[in-house]
Amino acid sequence: MLISGEDYIERLRGYEREIYVLGKKVENFVDHPNIRPTVNAFAYTFELAKLREEYSPYSELVGEKVNRLNCVNKTPEDLIARYDYQRELSKKLATCNYRCTGCDAINAIYPATKALDEREGTDYHKRFLKLLKEIQKKDYACTAALTDVKGDRSKRPAEQREKFMHVVEKREDGIVVSGAKIAQSGAFAADINFVLPTQTFKQGEEEFAIVFAATPEDEGIKYVIQNTGVQAKQREGGEFEPGNIRYGDRTTCMVIFDNVFIPWERVFIFEDLRATRDVLNYFASSHRCVGAACKAGFIDSMAGAASLMLKANGLEGVAVLQQRIAEMVAVSEAAFGIAAGAAVKGYNAYDIWHPNQLMANAGKIIGVEGFTKSLVNLIDISGGIIGTSPSEFDMKGEIGDKVGKYLSASEKFTVEQRMKLVKFIEFWATSSHLVGAIHGGGSPAAALITLRFIMDIKDKEEAVRECLNL
Amino acid sequence: MLISGEDYIERLRGYEREIYVLGKKVENFVDHPNIRPTVNAFAYTFELAKLREEYSPYSELVGEKVNRLNCVNKTPEDLIARYDYQRELSKKLATCNYRCTGCDAINAIYPATKALDEREGTDYHKRFLKLLKEIQKKDYACTAALTDVKGDRSKRPAEQREKFMHVVEKREDGIVVSGAKIAQSGAFAADINFVLPTQTFKQGEEEFAIVFAATPEDEGIKYVIQNTGVQAKQREGGEFEPGNIRYGDRTTCMVIFDNVFIPWERVFIFEDLRATRDVLNYFASSHRCVGAACKAGFIDSMAGAASLMLKANGLEGVAVLQQRIAEMVAVSEAAFGIAAGAAVKGYNAYDIWHPNQLMANAGKIIGVEGFTKSLVNLIDISGGIIGTSPSEFDMKGEIGDKVGKYLSASEKFTVEQRMKLVKFIEFWATSSHLVGAIHGGGSPAAALITLRFIMDIKDKEEAVRECLNL
Amino acid sequence: MLISGEDYIERLRGYEREIYVLGKKVENFVDHPNIRPTVNAFAYTFELAKLREEYSPYSELVGEKVNRLNCVNKTPEDLIARYDYQRELSKKLATCNYRCTGCDAINAIYPATKALDEREGTDYHKRFLKLLKEIQKKDYACTAALTDVKGDRSKRPAEQREKFMHVVEKREDGIVVSGAKIAQSGAFAADINFVLPTQTFKQGEEEFAIVFAATPEDEGIKYVIQNTGVQAKQREGGEFEPGNIRYGDRTTCMVIFDNVFIPWERVFIFEDLRATRDVLNYFASSHRCVGAACKAGFIDSMAGAASLMLKANGLEGVAVLQQRIAEMVAVSEAAFGIAAGAAVKGYNAYDIWHPNQLMANAGKIIGVEGFTKSLVNLIDISGGIIGTSPSEFDMKGEIGDKVGKYLSASEKFTVEQRMKLVKFIEFWATSSHLVGAIHGGGSPAAALITLRFIMDIKDKEEAVRECLNL
Amino acid sequence: MLISGEDYIERLRGYEREIYVLGKKVENFVDHPNIRPTVNAFAYTFELAKLREEYSPYSELVGEKVNRLNCVNKTPEDLIARYDYQRELSKKLATCNYRCTGCDAINAIYPATKALDEREGTDYHKRFLKLLKEIQKKDYACTAALTDVKGDRSKRPAEQREKFMHVVEKREDGIVVSGAKIAQSGAFAADINFVLPTQTFKQGEEEFAIVFAATPEDEGIKYVIQNTGVQAKQREGGEFEPGNIRYGDRTTCMVIFDNVFIPWERVFIFEDLRATRDVLNYFASSHRCVGAACKAGFIDSMAGAASLMLKANGLEGVAVLQQRIAEMVAVSEAAFGIAAGAAVKGYNAYDIWHPNQLMANAGKIIGVEGFTKSLVNLIDISGGIIGTSPSEFDMKGEIGDKVGKYLSASEKFTVEQRMKLVKFIEFWATSSHLVGAIHGGGSPAAALITLRFIMDIKDKEEAVRECLNL
Repeated sequence: MLISGEDYIERLRGYEREIYVLGKKVENFVDHPNIRPTVNAFAYTFELAKLREEYSPYSELVGEKVNRLNCVNKTPEDLIARYDYQRELSKKLATCNYRCTGCDAINAIYPATKALDEREGTDYHKRFLKLLKEIQKKDYACTAALTDVKGDRSKRPAEQREKFMHVVEKREDGIVVSGAKIAQSGAFAADINFVLPTQTFKQGEEEFAIVFAATPEDEGIKYVIQNTGVQAKQREGGEFEPGNIRYGDRTTCMVIFDNVFIPWERVFIFEDLRATRDVLNYFASSHRCVGAACKAGFIDSMAGAASLMLKANGLEGVAVLQQRIAEMVAVSEAAFGIAAGAAVKGYNAYDIWHPNQLMANAGKIIGVEGFTKSLVNLIDISGGIIGTSPSEFDMKGEIGDKVGKYLSASEKFTVEQRMKLVKFIEFWATSSHLVGAIHGGGSPAAALITLRFIMDIKDKEEAVRECLNL
Repeated sequence: MLISGEDYIERLRGYEREIYVLGKKVENFVDHPNIRPTVNAFAYTFELAKLREEYSPYSELVGEKVNRLNCVNKTPEDLIARYDYQRELSKKLATCNYRCTGCDAINAIYPATKALDEREGTDYHKRFLKLLKEIQKKDYACTAALTDVKGDRSKRPAEQREKFMHVVEKREDGIVVSGAKIAQSGAFAADINFVLPTQTFKQGEEEFAIVFAATPEDEGIKYVIQNTGVQAKQREGGEFEPGNIRYGDRTTCMVIFDNVFIPWERVFIFEDLRATRDVLNYFASSHRCVGAACKAGFIDSMAGAASLMLKANGLEGVAVLQQRIAEMVAVSEAAFGIAAGAAVKGYNAYDIWHPNQLMANAGKIIGVEGFTKSLVNLIDISGGIIGTSPSEFDMKGEIGDKVGKYLSASEKFTVEQRMKLVKFIEFWATSSHLVGAIHGGGSPAAALITLRFIMDIKDKEEAVRECLNL
Repeated sequence: MLISGEDYIERLRGYEREIYVLGKKVENFVDHPNIRPTVNAFAYTFELAKLREEYSPYSELVGEKVNRLNCVNKTPEDLIARYDYQRELSKKLATCNYRCTGCDAINAIYPATKALDEREGTDYHKRFLKLLKEIQKKDYACTAALTDVKGDRSKRPAEQREKFMHVVEKREDGIVVSGAKIAQSGAFAADINFVLPTQTFKQGEEEFAIVFAATPEDEGIKYVIQNTGVQAKQREGGEFEPGNIRYGDRTTCMVIFDNVFIPWERVFIFEDLRATRDVLNYFASSHRCVGAACKAGFIDSMAGAASLMLKANGLEGVAVLQQRIAEMVAVSEAAFGIAAGAAVKGYNAYDIWHPNQLMANAGKIIGVEGFTKSLVNLIDISGGIIGTSPSEFDMKGEIGDKVGKYLSASEKFTVEQRMKLVKFIEFWATSSHLVGAIHGGGSPAAALITLRFIMDIKDKEEAVRECLNL
Repeated sequence: MLISGEDYIERLRGYEREIYVLGKKVENFVDHPNIRPTVNAFAYTFELAKLREEYSPYSELVGEKVNRLNCVNKTPEDLIARYDYQRELSKKLATCNYRCTGCDAINAIYPATKALDEREGTDYHKRFLKLLKEIQKKDYACTAALTDVKGDRSKRPAEQREKFMHVVEKREDGIVVSGAKIAQSGAFAADINFVLPTQTFKQGEEEFAIVFAATPEDEGIKYVIQNTGVQAKQREGGEFEPGNIRYGDRTTCMVIFDNVFIPWERVFIFEDLRATRDVLNYFASSHRCVGAACKAGFIDSMAGAASLMLKANGLEGVAVLQQRIAEMVAVSEAAFGIAAGAAVKGYNAYDIWHPNQLMANAGKIIGVEGFTKSLVNLIDISGGIIGTSPSEFDMKGEIGDKVGKYLSASEKFTVEQRMKLVKFIEFWATSSHLVGAIHGGGSPAAALITLRFIMDIKDKEEAVRECLNL
């Protein structure tokens, strides 16, 4: 089924959720100024899916068209369609679409449970398929939670003052879990939240080696919304002052699981170290690779903004500034190219087509470098005003006429149009975007470490030995 | 005279000023949450001056000790002392100290008026010295305004819908000026604001070629405070939520001059194209060079924060992370080294010791690259939490006990201490700092263009010709 | 037909060619120390083709298996197979394989002549197909010549002291052409050399708008071999002193056409401006994209050498050095990923599957950055010895025993093995590789200019306008 | 005394030296094509010293003017004069001047022996002063040897198959030493060669903790000259083919000490671990800092060459290419600025003015980045010809008229002038310069490690703690 954005919002209104902003529980969370932009971004994913065939393919699992983000990828084409969708979303939203981790989780749990069942004779995969069917049929929006609050990193998970997400009790009908996940993008506005471990574990740490799905009916889950400057601006309102008024800054939360009961039918890995490693490996490549496509979309948005700003300032004819935009396009296409290349150079494992791991990690590294370069270019060619501008309210305030006339520039743009651009670019420069680019899916350092372990250096050494008769 | 920070604040309270925030005129501007941090930063400059001999040298002009920032530089040592002072301020404040442009203006107007008088037989220099004495005696805080709102950049100043700062009327007792300056750091909290042109002009554009000083008694000046996310947070209060609670984000304003009368005694250049070029040349080198020292201080602060954050996370023993801090120190020392080198390789012109122009511009370019690299390093090694953290209010709110326990890490830091660090680093990553680093004193592109015109490429060509017998 | 490397060499011996080294015509050019390494590299392309199915696909044109480099690409898979082949060649040869431009030319002339014939009713395409069949059947090695000696670049082609390649005479049976091409990689050792224009032309410059094929039987062609330090070393012999003893430094030549007669059957574009533009567009994307795959292979070779060198020095256990190798792998995979992505995101035009133009140009830019970074990493972790080492002859000379004992390191490598590595890495660092990486297929600047013209900035602006309701 | 370059060469002719090139002992080494360029570079240092007052200051030690490179630095001005001299030499020679390490050694042994004597009551300092006087009076050219062939780096010095430079025998009149130093720039053409340890040592490794001076009269020293492509070209002659015909590629050698007797009067540290650490610390800062000035001079030469090449190609009017030269100037001035800044921010220890250690190491890092960037810029804007050009001999050979006419460009340059430029830039791109920039004075990685240990991170943490009330 393909529901509309409006349907999704209505469904969301039906959920009872403990969501906190600035230390207080929020009533009617859907319309809270710090949450509504996230809801809008989610809603857009439903709308866009309906516009393009490849974003809503036919699923054999349920015999109908479903959202691409709820699909298992069977072919390189599936992956590429997903990356196209992702790039388009990032370009259009200029913020997180929040659902990529859900899709990553689906494509990681699927093969990991399949392998686990083959190895152990369990039925985790069947359980998972049952939930997946429901997700596809009801067109649920899914996210995934990985990052535990890590505490003192010189200590092992069980030595922390507060343990990582772990099994508190094993019951006949399910398990009770406790722990907290941080940096969870949009979890509060999703229908399903997959919970995966934050790392692999050693023997004796099995209590942490769990994967399950949380739903709105689970009790004891608390969402604490992050607080950034953009979010503070959103609380003050205005038509465009926060920059990306409709979709907002990427909004994450800390999700606290306070003795939450999860029935067995939603437990997919239970105290299995190897399956944990599998699911994390699949997830990491999947997420880093789609992250490259995401960065491409973000850079597209920045390039578009830069081009409009040049026009608004009467500078569109300056070759050296146009060249800076071309540099942005180059890194955008590079990042997306790597993702597409990883898709076509990927591999099949347990019925899932996975992206090439080497390229997925390379994409993360190039993506961050490209994002940073693009951001600097954007700031540079947009001028200092994007960090020093008066507000929308000044334009409309007591001396608004004076303020407005001095902020006007090219006649092709009204003052308000130019100021919308200024605030949009200020948003790019001062929101959590740079942090998100660096840390989303793990930092570049993490990608490099992964590469050290998976790179086939022997093959490269052999080429040299052959060339030199060594 | 050397007044205290408290004295400065008291004096400020005596000024009537039209200051607007979010479109509304502010009463008791000194204590407004968006202005007080700036006032605190200014106040600290007075306090620090008294702590070190070289920050408050003896002035022959007035026969007493004065603030280094109100001094004319006569020797390389003067310049170096100024750069030390600047670096220390940036390191301690983690934001703008707001007075560097005032010092730049003093050291630009002094020689430019001297040259002008020698050339034209005028008495501008004498006028300027009179004001300078007053500044030194009363220990005024000065800033300088250069950047006009530029409108459509494909047009000349006079073709704009709103003209650049210009002479509206020439009277016997002074001139009447109109125009608006934007991106003015802290102008609203200064005692004296020097107003300089934003660029050089051609013949026929003399009406823009003016330099003067504005004081609190001038009528018709309106300050419109910029609005960033950090400032929105400041309006909501909290003990540390905005990150740099005491000194805040760099706060700029648009300054509108609405038919303001300036008496002749405060007019220092009047419709003179050549003196305008001189004053801008002196100012640009002075500002770009001190900017390199400023970036060094900022990077010092980031390096300190990074080091503390590693400790708070239990990661201080990881060599590869320490190396990232060493990279930050390298660029900090590089930026400061260039400033010190420019001082010692500077030149005397009209009794003022100016920094080496080539190095001043090189310092700008290296400074921005270094700042960007340091910011990326800081974000990378601090972890994703610095872009996704709950707020201070969550820690103290309805479920504060749960939030707090999950945010704790190394036992060497309380949760509050760690969260202060998190919010401080979030401040670095999402305030207007990156924009400020790129655009303060003109963008790197502007520095490159300057270099193209002042570099002695002939000398370098000669070396090659000699080597090759060309 | 698939001939062997030995067959190719024998065929080459049958050609009469005017080839000059250091100003003197060379007898028995095949075995000249500056030419033989190039011949070996060509020969390896024949050998490798036979080892893998996808490097020698079935050609419908001639009904047999042919070398991938003589194929027209019909599908994304064709392109990807070509990129795989290219990367493998670069990795194994550590130098140019010389045939990429031949393949680029085939895939550019094919569609351009097809379009030209459709437009003008001519029969150029048929002529081309006839030659292509011969190439495939006889398994010829092809190269392409584009870069004219450009003279004074502030002047148009016809204003130069020596004109660009141009038509001297139009005869019934063909044309007579004159001009010189420079930077021609391996042209002297190819069977067929396609000659394309160096740029697009304006009306009135039709004499330059020509494409043709030169063969060994053509009279008046002179090859002047370039001279680099590696080539000077090759003339002195030794078993491994020049570093890449078997395949050598990339060896280019200047090719002078001195009133050369070309029969009509080998003329494919004749004084047609539009077809010239087409052929150059197709060629540029094709070449830049395969160039990214080529850089990937080169970086692979450098990474392999770095890894071996660490082992030879007893440093293989140092994490921070391994990380530098991982960085090299990251850029290698990124460059190749972009090429693969460009293939899959390409387009069909006139029966040829072309790579995505945006990505092809992005690949060039990222490829050069990655190559430079990798080279610096390689130098850094290999130690200063790779730029200061005694020679092979010292090891074997009068005090060879003493020299040898001091040059030994890890017991896992003999001194000779370590010295081979040292000289191989010295070769990477001091051969023409860096210049080749930057300029092969046009400089990064050229790629950026192309991007400025082909990027769809409107689409990106639209996304921003939609987001902001502009 | 200040002798002439000619005097120096005559003196050199008087030395009996065992020097090997390509495995054979060289007769009349001074005029060997691989040695003469180095001799010319040395000779130029004598000539330049006489041209400028500050390059040949008055020495109180001997009561006459002496070469700046044989001076002890007592003031910041001394250091700056040295850096000026260094930059000028690098700019003019476009290669190593070979004497910087000699000056570094003098300024490291002086304070280290002074401290040693104060601590131990020895008379090493007096011995050193005696030699220093002789050096100054006779105007000797000095170099220093540090880098031992390191063997297997996972082992300690005494575990190597061949030990590091060590004491073989302690006699009444002196010591006998054995070992080999590699990467020794120009040691074969110096009058005095200071020998310092390659690293600090642990207790039990005292046999390596020695510093002494070697002179031409010492027996058992063998010099094995390195072999690069440029050197191979030099052996073939020509007027400009090797690029930097007069001064050549930086020429290093391996120096083998085969049971060499050193009298006590030339032993300055004998089996003292602490003095060894001191001398290395002083040396490292001194060398890294002068290295930044050196890179500035090299970049100057590259910028000059780039500018001439643009003119030779008729491209001098293209703004975007001029900007690339401005980027080169920016990094040159930055590198030099850091050196000058380090001088003025240095410190006195044991009567010597040392550069600021932090900045010295920062200078190394920025210098290498700047050099690499400049090299890429130089290659990019000079065009592919600098890696693919025919030789000088082709221009003058059998078809020289044809070759020449096609290589001509702007009428402002003859073909020969343009080709000299081409070969000079090829020299920059393919000589050992890049390796030398990275490894001279230790790699950037070594500088970063040093920074980790000397950076005052506590001070930076304190600033943050104060700002946040931590």
